[in-house]
Amino acid sequence: MAKGNGVERKSHAVQKGVSVMDLIFRILALIGTLGSAFAMATTNQRLPFFNSFTQFKARYRDIPAFIFFVAANGIVSAYLLLSLPFSFFHILRSSAQRTRLILMFFDMAMLVILTAGASAAAAIVYLAHIGNPNWNWFSFCRQFHSFCERSSGSLIGSFVAVIFMTLVIILAGVALARRPSIL
Amino acid sequence: MAKGNGVERKSHAVQKGVSVMDLIFRILALIGTLGSAFAMATTNQRLPFFNSFTQFKARYRDIPAFIFFVAANGIVSAYLLLSLPFSFFHILRSSAQRTRLILMFFDMAMLVILTAGASAAAAIVYLAHIGNPNWNWFSFCRQFHSFCERSSGSLIGSFVAVIFMTLVIILAGVALARRPSIL
Repeated sequence: MAKGNGVERKSHAVQKGVSVMDLIFRILALIGTLGSAFAMATTNQRLPFFNSFTQFKARYRDIPAFIFFVAANGIVSAYLLLSLPFSFFHILRSSAQRTRLILMFFDMAMLVILTAGASAAAAIVYLAHIGNPNWNWFSFCRQFHSFCERSSGSLIGSFVAVIFMTLVIILAGVALARRPSIL
Repeated sequence: MAKGNGVERKSHAVQKGVSVMDLIFRILALIGTLGSAFAMATTNQRLPFFNSFTQFKARYRDIPAFIFFVAANGIVSAYLLLSLPFSFFHILRSSAQRTRLILMFFDMAMLVILTAGASAAAAIVYLAHIGNPNWNWFSFCRQFHSFCERSSGSLIGSFVAVIFMTLVIILAGVALARRPSIL
């Protein structure tokens, strides 16, 4: 009986540790997505010369993939913010299973959205840097250097968030597998 | 006792149903990724005229995002093929928890790779269709119509596979939450 209690207490402590890490990873992922969304959305560059044909101006709104990137990061940021109270609740009630499972499904949906947004933007950023001579698409970064630097940098936050979201889901899997079923 | 047995038997049947669905979804995802990889990798188009400057030829290897797309689909196809025996084992031994958890983590990694490949390719396909007049990138599909059609079509299999992989992970979450812990 005493041994059983000891095991249970240890298991409880591990469960609590997992929940605290879940909260920390969510906050780090939130910082990443918020940073990415702001960095990309506020990027714009105007070149110091112009003519009547072209605008020599670069904004994220010119590129649908960048719009999707900002939207995806915004949606995931809002979700992560809303999920923090649940994550905090799991620290207090570390045996909660059902809310963990529900949260895990939403986490996964958000991970897919975030990965999609980050990859689409990365594909465009790559093209902007290197261009595609076969298709007569020339590098865009030669003219718009600061726009390019900034939009490339904004990818980092998103990919960091992808890593933390993956860790959050792995933690949820561990927490679900450790406790007896309530479903 | 009799009631307990009945509940256990019913739970066992549900668990077996979940395992069978897991196998079916994996096979469908495999068909999607294999189809995508082949469709994209075998796409090429040569225009019936040429000059000494340009090759008027389109292959998936010209576009890094398409190479990544083929690689991602290939990797996920190989993984899904290797995971089929485990999925089959889960039908026979539906109480297995540890292998389910391990498989679920790999599933998630593969889902992220597949989503990244499909989104990056989709961003390029969109540009190829619409172009980006602000950046002087002109639609590539006007000349290479069949290449464009085929590479756009090959995205479908990949996105269908993303949906089935998501369902596979949700099933694993349900199966893990239903059974008593063995970790």
